Amino acid sequence: MAGNNIKVLDCTIRDGGLMNNHKFDLKFVRAVYKALSEANIDYMEIGYKNSRKLFSASEFGSWKFCADEDILKVIKGVRSKTKIAVMVDVDRVEPAEVKPKKESPVSMIRVATYIKDIEKAVLLCNQMADKGYETAVNIMAVSKAPAEELSKILSLLDNKSKADVIFISDSNGSLYHETLAALFKKAKKYIISKETGIHAHNNLQLAFSNTIEAIQQGASYLDCSIYGLGRAAGNCPTELLLGFLKNPKYDIRPVLDVIAKEFIPLRKKLEWGYIIPYAIAGILDEHPKAAMALRDSAQKDNFREFYESLTTTKKKKV
Amino acid sequence: MAGNNIKVLDCTIRDGGLMNNHKFDLKFVRAVYKALSEANIDYMEIGYKNSRKLFSASEFGSWKFCADEDILKVIKGVRSKTKIAVMVDVDRVEPAEVKPKKESPVSMIRVATYIKDIEKAVLLCNQMADKGYETAVNIMAVSKAPAEELSKILSLLDNKSKADVIFISDSNGSLYHETLAALFKKAKKYIISKETGIHAHNNLQLAFSNTIEAIQQGASYLDCSIYGLGRAAGNCPTELLLGFLKNPKYDIRPVLDVIAKEFIPLRKKLEWGYIIPYAIAGILDEHPKAAMALRDSAQKDNFREFYESLTTTKKKKV
Repeated sequence: MAGNNIKVLDCTIRDGGLMNNHKFDLKFVRAVYKALSEANIDYMEIGYKNSRKLFSASEFGSWKFCADEDILKVIKGVRSKTKIAVMVDVDRVEPAEVKPKKESPVSMIRVATYIKDIEKAVLLCNQMADKGYETAVNIMAVSKAPAEELSKILSLLDNKSKADVIFISDSNGSLYHETLAALFKKAKKYIISKETGIHAHNNLQLAFSNTIEAIQQGASYLDCSIYGLGRAAGNCPTELLLGFLKNPKYDIRPVLDVIAKEFIPLRKKLEWGYIIPYAIAGILDEHPKAAMALRDSAQKDNFREFYESLTTTKKKKV
Repeated sequence: MAGNNIKVLDCTIRDGGLMNNHKFDLKFVRAVYKALSEANIDYMEIGYKNSRKLFSASEFGSWKFCADEDILKVIKGVRSKTKIAVMVDVDRVEPAEVKPKKESPVSMIRVATYIKDIEKAVLLCNQMADKGYETAVNIMAVSKAPAEELSKILSLLDNKSKADVIFISDSNGSLYHETLAALFKKAKKYIISKETGIHAHNNLQLAFSNTIEAIQQGASYLDCSIYGLGRAAGNCPTELLLGFLKNPKYDIRPVLDVIAKEFIPLRKKLEWGYIIPYAIAGILDEHPKAAMALRDSAQKDNFREFYESLTTTKKKKV
């Protein structure tokens, strides 16, 4: 179905960590790593590499920091071709604290950035590339990017960054196919020397279909997460993507196994997926944080009031 | 976003009834009817009109039979422009038992048929049209239809049936965009004198995106169900479709309300939606009945074994 240049990047632990302050225990993270390794997934993104100076270790779990020694505990003794990726945010990582690639179990570092921070992102990306890592830049919240600015940024990334891959990230989960296709057509126009990737959110149940659309537009790096685990509505489900790709390189069965053993029980304790306030945020192209706050409150099922509060605010802004 | 000729057909009670032997109580069905009426949805499909000679009234609820007097209890006293639709299956309805349109609260009768029964379906459809009803034919399991046969059937439906609309039904929830688009291109080639419609299932989380794709290919009748309630993985969620259409004719808020008040509690008692065995059935283009049986058994989370049982059977067949 898809070409040999496709790379599957599972971000279950990284994006899912946004729902539990990155407090997955070692047993769970190892179960995911084993499943992805047996499934022969190309990359596993395990968390954020934030500076411990900025975030409290009592408030956040290990995968907010991704210390090499914690990663080593996950991968120890597992036969695997799956590469480890971590995400870094502009201004939240101390570059000097990141060891050179040859001393680290990490293969890829992805720089997540909003458009306003793009210059800093390029600098950070290049520092990481100079340490020997594969690198990527994830442009967040593309649905909010003014068209002209986006063209400049894509051109800048192609010319000035050392990133191997530029990811388009539908942070609000608000993109329909047509808009996504238009974005990728633009990306392919400006991103000449690098690969492109897609990171979709599932607010509108479109994460999987938008990922397919991105493949058809030439994206080769595909983000996904097991059983869709990720922030709010979650991401493109890994199991559906493998079912679509039909590439004999990948084996869906270990993913099905780990869903039954780890994710079905987890879903009883942790909420993510198709939940109406996240759908409303997607319909209105809003960041999911208001919807997440609603779900943490006693009014969690006040869907109509939530919709009206957002649409009234919107009207007021105009 | 979409043209004025779009008609939204909510099949929550009809397709959802396949999960509980059509035993929705009057309060629930009235709540759905009120919500759809306030939302200004064009059609509400309320169940199957089966002959009471064929099915036991002790085993099945009212919406397996859709007696006019039961429908009248639902709609009584509600201000509404929403038309009532019912579905009939070939060989399961006694045409003589169906009153003329002018004596009935039903506006539209949809004939559901597999390809092998198409001649009978045309006859039944025309009998219903002669009684004064709007009529439609739903071609089920199109993913399994041989290409040449489908062309003939579409041509037959266009020439010989009195149906107003021909629906393409992705019964197995296995169609990806490209295949769906190709099917609609073919349908538009042969169906000249009638409208076309889409009935999608959500096994692969593609029911909504396939409905959008169908709109882009010219479909004007769109099936959906509130909170996706329908057989197995369910259908295209009504709330997402209204969010996409952005037609001021429709009001999403009553739908959000009824989800909070009726569907969130119902979901704790009745299972439907994105559930791994239904996804597996979609990936393998299998009817969901084996997956539904699995979910009713003690092995309901044995995903890997279920996948292997289906793929082994498939290999044996070759």
